[in-house]
Amino acid sequence: MEELTSIHNQHVKNWKKLQTKKYRRQTGRYLLDGWHLVQEAHKAGIEILQLIGTDEQLDAHQDLIGLSAEVYQVTEEIMRHITETVTPQGIAAVVEMPNAHQVPSAPLNGAWLLLDRVQDPGNVGTMVRTADAAGFTGVVVGDRSADLFSPKVVRSMQGSQFHLQMYEGDLSKWIEDFKQVDAPVYGTQLNPAAKSFRDVHPGATFALIMGNEGHGMSKELLAQTTANLYIPMRGEAESLNVAVSAGILMFQLNQGLAD
Amino acid sequence: MEELTSIHNQHVKNWKKLQTKKYRRQTGRYLLDGWHLVQEAHKAGIEILQLIGTDEQLDAHQDLIGLSAEVYQVTEEIMRHITETVTPQGIAAVVEMPNAHQVPSAPLNGAWLLLDRVQDPGNVGTMVRTADAAGFTGVVVGDRSADLFSPKVVRSMQGSQFHLQMYEGDLSKWIEDFKQVDAPVYGTQLNPAAKSFRDVHPGATFALIMGNEGHGMSKELLAQTTANLYIPMRGEAESLNVAVSAGILMFQLNQGLAD
Repeated sequence: MEELTSIHNQHVKNWKKLQTKKYRRQTGRYLLDGWHLVQEAHKAGIEILQLIGTDEQLDAHQDLIGLSAEVYQVTEEIMRHITETVTPQGIAAVVEMPNAHQVPSAPLNGAWLLLDRVQDPGNVGTMVRTADAAGFTGVVVGDRSADLFSPKVVRSMQGSQFHLQMYEGDLSKWIEDFKQVDAPVYGTQLNPAAKSFRDVHPGATFALIMGNEGHGMSKELLAQTTANLYIPMRGEAESLNVAVSAGILMFQLNQGLAD
Repeated sequence: MEELTSIHNQHVKNWKKLQTKKYRRQTGRYLLDGWHLVQEAHKAGIEILQLIGTDEQLDAHQDLIGLSAEVYQVTEEIMRHITETVTPQGIAAVVEMPNAHQVPSAPLNGAWLLLDRVQDPGNVGTMVRTADAAGFTGVVVGDRSADLFSPKVVRSMQGSQFHLQMYEGDLSKWIEDFKQVDAPVYGTQLNPAAKSFRDVHPGATFALIMGNEGHGMSKELLAQTTANLYIPMRGEAESLNVAVSAGILMFQLNQGLAD
């Protein structure tokens, strides 16, 4: 165990840099903040590359020190610095990001959530967490969505990233891949002329695409789907929050699997 | 039209004080920030007691000046001060709060959402907005929920308060009122032994209760309901965001009405 007291230490600087997308891409790693996420990672069989804790927290959880080959005892100031949290729990860990630019090796199956330029990190994280609860198999984010492993998205995913396959990629290509295995791909549209979501009953393998908070899905993707779905709403309401819509749709489309 | 340039002006001080629950209760008024909300209020036939705008915004919307007997032209600094927004749109209005402590005069009917100690303003606002979209009739908040007319709740309701009946009160009494008209009251519980939400098909009049983000509904209220509902989830997910759960439940329970 190494004891660090300065925020100018090179380890501390590197952990801090994990807040940037660029450095996460360079190293292939990201930071988990708090006991819940560290334990979820361990339960999921994810290797804890570095475990970082305050004196007090490491003392209180002796059993977890063995989880990692590299353990660092740090000050509360360092903890606040690297987590950008006002009152951090005092424990963090560095783990590997899944290799998100791969494509699945086995044929596509199960329910998948595709995110087209969803920009609010809280929305992205909440949708990943909801996909997990709804029994989905994986999540794919397109080019201009919030980064899956940014601190805010990680906080709101609450560990669901360990239960799902997580990918980044060209959604247009993913749609073609689903079509190749005869699986329907459902877009979503704020358009009463689209298909009511209650009229769709897919089998076990399908994809659902949610779009940008303000602008919805891109026209190009809307044109490529099997069908585009609409949630019928009372006239006076103009739209639903994207994460709420995604929840309604995922629990409706994946009924058989989630129960 | 009165022109105000100092944040020490008494009107400005009063508008600023509308950010506090205490002053909203004293005056029975709250502040709408932005064109969308002002227009929604007008469309709903709500009287605009005071219209507050910057030079530029009032110029651009001459037609709306007639909406209010009291129009104030203010500086951008004043606008930022009273809205606590970094880049306000430059238009705001003071309107009356509905008399939330009344009870409905007609017999209860329609779908109602009851909130038991939901504390995050964004969650409360999103649930009100979703209730509107799902065709609900009204929303009732219990004692220790976020205040319905706080600036953050108002921002996230996006005008849905004008389409719904809005009350505050003792939820225990409200449950009894629903029972009096033989309408079912559904609680919600993170408990797989509770009733699956898919197995419930209420008529046009019912109530749904959502609980606190961390602790759920109070035991007392859970004991008072007709049935308590559960959203079946994949084992590894621990819970859903309360606003997402509310959306799934509201669109399931109110199917007939929302379509």
